[in-house]
Amino acid sequence: MQTSNWVPLGGLLVALGAPAAHADALRDQASSIFKPIPDSVTEVQGEAITPAQIALGKQLFFEPRLSSSHIISCNTCHNIGTGGADNLPTSSGHAWQKGARNSPTVFNAVFNVAQFWDGRAKDLQEQAKGPVQNPLEMHSTPKAVEQTLASMPEYVEAFSKAFPNEKAPLSFENMARAIQAFETTLITPNSRFDQFLKGDDRALDAEEKHGLKAFMDRGCTACHNGVNIGGQAYFPFGLVNKPADKVRPVGDKGRFEVTRSGSDEYVFRAAPLRNVALTAPYFHSGQVQDLKEAVAIMGNAQLGADLSNEEVQSITAFLKTLTGRQPQIVYPVLPPSTNATPRPE
Amino acid sequence: MQTSNWVPLGGLLVALGAPAAHADALRDQASSIFKPIPDSVTEVQGEAITPAQIALGKQLFFEPRLSSSHIISCNTCHNIGTGGADNLPTSSGHAWQKGARNSPTVFNAVFNVAQFWDGRAKDLQEQAKGPVQNPLEMHSTPKAVEQTLASMPEYVEAFSKAFPNEKAPLSFENMARAIQAFETTLITPNSRFDQFLKGDDRALDAEEKHGLKAFMDRGCTACHNGVNIGGQAYFPFGLVNKPADKVRPVGDKGRFEVTRSGSDEYVFRAAPLRNVALTAPYFHSGQVQDLKEAVAIMGNAQLGADLSNEEVQSITAFLKTLTGRQPQIVYPVLPPSTNATPRPE
Repeated sequence: MQTSNWVPLGGLLVALGAPAAHADALRDQASSIFKPIPDSVTEVQGEAITPAQIALGKQLFFEPRLSSSHIISCNTCHNIGTGGADNLPTSSGHAWQKGARNSPTVFNAVFNVAQFWDGRAKDLQEQAKGPVQNPLEMHSTPKAVEQTLASMPEYVEAFSKAFPNEKAPLSFENMARAIQAFETTLITPNSRFDQFLKGDDRALDAEEKHGLKAFMDRGCTACHNGVNIGGQAYFPFGLVNKPADKVRPVGDKGRFEVTRSGSDEYVFRAAPLRNVALTAPYFHSGQVQDLKEAVAIMGNAQLGADLSNEEVQSITAFLKTLTGRQPQIVYPVLPPSTNATPRPE
Repeated sequence: MQTSNWVPLGGLLVALGAPAAHADALRDQASSIFKPIPDSVTEVQGEAITPAQIALGKQLFFEPRLSSSHIISCNTCHNIGTGGADNLPTSSGHAWQKGARNSPTVFNAVFNVAQFWDGRAKDLQEQAKGPVQNPLEMHSTPKAVEQTLASMPEYVEAFSKAFPNEKAPLSFENMARAIQAFETTLITPNSRFDQFLKGDDRALDAEEKHGLKAFMDRGCTACHNGVNIGGQAYFPFGLVNKPADKVRPVGDKGRFEVTRSGSDEYVFRAAPLRNVALTAPYFHSGQVQDLKEAVAIMGNAQLGADLSNEEVQSITAFLKTLTGRQPQIVYPVLPPSTNATPRPE
């Protein structure tokens, strides 16, 4: 108990002191499960990230010419202004085609064990290469990307600065490395929950604290833990009860499609819950708009519990405290195309 | 002649002095035709612009939920990172439909006499309402926009702050007013040409000065003049010689479609040439990628002149000095949808 939480005002002494005592116990329990988002990330995969890589990666993240149409950039589906996602059930890609799964937020993605709903990319560098080549998404090729970027002297120079001492700094692989470097800056520290973890009892109100307690005691934390409150491991969606087909479409077997292991049917990476209040609709199918409904579905599917309205309400209130400080990104100026730049399709 | 341009170094005195003399005459001639972009715009249509309007307008400019798909924002086709345009022949809108004309840059658009290639919107406020409702573009309606924005408490508050003392501050019309307010900040002062206009002889090199001189002496400035080097009045495209059908498609009669006056067939607002090096492809048809080719076409179509390669080269070099300081825009954080927000189509 922190004695500084005691206010020497007679009757108020108990009133304020008691919650502080509870808060300390709650914080101790929470701190054994969660960690705050750090203020910055300085390396990734053991390599330091340089300002030149971040600057280049920011340009590439907003670069529509990575798509064959010259319309779609990373930011189209991982919109910096809307929680790092597009808030659609599933994204719209090349020629208005729909993707198969809900676009996950790019915010704090660097803290996930792997990328995509099924973890098929081991890191953000690997991930960044996916949508660029996906015919449903950006519909390009490594060769077209390299040709496009090499046609603009400003990019040639930026790659040289970002990857000095390399023979061929401008490459599809280094495009992905630079995007990864930028994405390490897309983190959202200082959520009210993190303020609470760091010692500020008043960062959460009573209902939010109840929600946090219920979230831990009910066992949500079996999957949703760590710095990202999820994103650390894989679990069957429908551990206890099968969710409705609408929410868990029969045709999408999740991680099974990566591992071909029967035990991975309908297995997904536990959703990271940072900024979850900003990233509706929910689940890989993107079919649930209401966060409260998503909480109730998870209670039933994963825990076999019919959560009371009050529990759903307080857990939802807690989840809303996971919204952190959103990244402040100055829109990058992109180099103009040249006569050598391939034309959009 | 500015004596400060004379350098007392013997032989060099003449060498540096002579260009300065030419530069002064050139500047005098140019200053009678052009004006530099101001550092800021503080009012529009006689009304002061407030920071609250600009802040709201910035959110709305980047707001994909102004489109029925929740994918397309103003920034999709008027990309802040690529010269305020999308650099496509014509834009891709709702359901991947192609628009009819090349997307004009939003940068410095506040200085144009009217908006759109045919001037059919008298100002940016009027303009902003067009693409939102165009079924080929954002495919929404005033009612849907109002319902969408009113579903988010943050927008309700932002409209109240932007338009205080109004009975119903949140309206489609005020959406347009706010976007206009933000767009007045999308100006690009301090181009090298403007530095030259303001007295810096060395801001332009010899070729660029030749180009400026040719641009004026050949008569390009009959249409391309003023602060935006164009955008001030309407002229037939093909004043002397009819451009190729590819460049001036027969089916698009320009301002005729607004006025129905026979004399307005193939009449367009003279393209404003600020940042023209960033906004290829050129003309309302967007069919010419190379700025040099665009200059040659204009020489023939508008002046009946076959410009020499050297002239085309130097005029193009001059046009590249019209690239100003690009706006530094921090990406806005948009409010999350609520259960009352209409779903994307």
